[in-house]
Amino acid sequence: MKALTYDGPGKIKVVDKPTPTITNPADAVVKLLRTTICGTDLHIIKGDVPTAPAGRTLGHEGIGLVHDIGPEVKSLKKGDRVLIACITSCATCSFCKRSMNDQCKNGGWTLGNTSDGTQAEYVRIPYTDANLYHVPEGVDERSLLVFSDILPSGLEVGVLRGGVKPGCTLAIVGAGPVGLACAITAKLYSPRKIVFFDKDEARLEVAKKIGADDCINPTQGDVRELASKHFGDIDGFDVVIEAVGVPATFKMCQDLVGIGGHLANVGVHGTKVELDIDRLWPRSTTISMALVSAHTIPQLLDLNSAGKLDTGAMITHDFKFSEIEKAYDVFSRAAETKSLKVNIEF
Amino acid sequence: MKALTYDGPGKIKVVDKPTPTITNPADAVVKLLRTTICGTDLHIIKGDVPTAPAGRTLGHEGIGLVHDIGPEVKSLKKGDRVLIACITSCATCSFCKRSMNDQCKNGGWTLGNTSDGTQAEYVRIPYTDANLYHVPEGVDERSLLVFSDILPSGLEVGVLRGGVKPGCTLAIVGAGPVGLACAITAKLYSPRKIVFFDKDEARLEVAKKIGADDCINPTQGDVRELASKHFGDIDGFDVVIEAVGVPATFKMCQDLVGIGGHLANVGVHGTKVELDIDRLWPRSTTISMALVSAHTIPQLLDLNSAGKLDTGAMITHDFKFSEIEKAYDVFSRAAETKSLKVNIEF
Repeated sequence: MKALTYDGPGKIKVVDKPTPTITNPADAVVKLLRTTICGTDLHIIKGDVPTAPAGRTLGHEGIGLVHDIGPEVKSLKKGDRVLIACITSCATCSFCKRSMNDQCKNGGWTLGNTSDGTQAEYVRIPYTDANLYHVPEGVDERSLLVFSDILPSGLEVGVLRGGVKPGCTLAIVGAGPVGLACAITAKLYSPRKIVFFDKDEARLEVAKKIGADDCINPTQGDVRELASKHFGDIDGFDVVIEAVGVPATFKMCQDLVGIGGHLANVGVHGTKVELDIDRLWPRSTTISMALVSAHTIPQLLDLNSAGKLDTGAMITHDFKFSEIEKAYDVFSRAAETKSLKVNIEF
Repeated sequence: MKALTYDGPGKIKVVDKPTPTITNPADAVVKLLRTTICGTDLHIIKGDVPTAPAGRTLGHEGIGLVHDIGPEVKSLKKGDRVLIACITSCATCSFCKRSMNDQCKNGGWTLGNTSDGTQAEYVRIPYTDANLYHVPEGVDERSLLVFSDILPSGLEVGVLRGGVKPGCTLAIVGAGPVGLACAITAKLYSPRKIVFFDKDEARLEVAKKIGADDCINPTQGDVRELASKHFGDIDGFDVVIEAVGVPATFKMCQDLVGIGGHLANVGVHGTKVELDIDRLWPRSTTISMALVSAHTIPQLLDLNSAGKLDTGAMITHDFKFSEIEKAYDVFSRAAETKSLKVNIEF
């Protein structure tokens, strides 16, 4: 089969690999219908993720058909159309039992990292019953691509950890796919207003489309001055979500979080940051950070079927799998190409 | 009357001042019976607190007798024995209504900061009904000195924000008065174990006395190695309380917090710190920091009357008010004098 692999720092390569087979009785092999690219894939390519060796098939998101199953698989049969969870859960370790699948002792973030991923014609999925979800009938399959990782990331790491609740004010720093996923899932909790911050005007346009109440370009002036009309008596926002992952945006979040507020970090950071604890401690600040667990996928699929989620604006480009290197090029030059998530079809 | 005042950076001075009088109808004037010194007083003396000018009477803790009351005071009468809350609440602003008295729009931390404090023979207390508590009959008055600030600080900022709950593992970095207050109030929530970290062996001895399960001196080796037997499968502690307030101890807390754990900062920081977000984000870490609100004082007084709090070990030295400068000297050389809280009697 064909697979897109990491080929050492700065490089990717499409190669021929043996089609994976069932190696454990709870495994399934999925024939991919669609996959996509994540910022984390770019991190691996930069050489930032030492657990992913050269030769690894990338990708942890996708939709496919069950091609083969082991004898212990109970919830699926061959031919079923399934969504793949980005995080692999064994469902039985002490972390999985606490819905911390990302910390699973037998899985975690393995796909496209410590085991071959979804940017290939076939992928082997362990603990099938815990990690594949039936794609409901009648649902637009393409739009479900964001349900493997981005949408649960926004809900779990941004909205739920941030404590978004009815009537709160929410700032989202970064209007990329993760920031948009935070807004789409935050709206389930009826915040009073959602304000986006991004220096990319095209991304702010998309944020407006999905219902942002205000969009602020921080290159236009002092961010606190630009946002002050939203501050109210807490002198900032109730919840601030960091959806970029660099020191400058983390700093911006510290400037925006209000008294008694919560800074929920979703961005993937590669370096330490400065924490203004001397300024924040008397303001009753809480800061959270986490990896997605992906345990909310079934809830999100239900909400989608009920028409409560509009993720249409998140997928901007379509490619055939044979064009995946071009897809990487477009995705990695997001500011220029105005790309968010890309749909790659097999 | 006599009052201990801040006399500009590095200096204190006992001076004669006019006895305060009722200036608002909800005021009371309290004749002090006992007061104590807090680390925050030392911060002011260092010149770290720009809101406190030279000439300010220091102190925000104390017990006294109601000397005079304004016509609007409902809950107290002259001669009542009362505990003074360190934080002044108006009880009606949007913050006080959310139990965030520390952010009160008409009060907050004013005593010994923006208004004259409790290290004087008399003190004026605004919004009396919200800020003075009856000292229950039969209770050891001396032991109540820690109920103005230290004990609610430990409970609210350490234990409650940290989410201490039955069966959790708790690390407390800093075995000074605040760290001990955290342990005493944490025990109300039945943690599986409490482990203290301090380089002062005398303080660790006190921690043992109040029931610490283990006491670790970080000068004896690598703190993670020394504590690893307590880590379990989360590779650290469920809750870590920072009760010092310097970059080195904040760093130690980041090393000790386990997967899915909570770092509750109680220490007062005067500088920024480094946040190891690159290491902590995939470990699902939450960090909180706050000022005490002191809204738990009534609950703590009830628990004390019910015999559920043993604060006896926290007060180490006794002075007359005429010796307050000596008390400051002993308190500020804590490592040498083995002092924790000091009882200063009028």
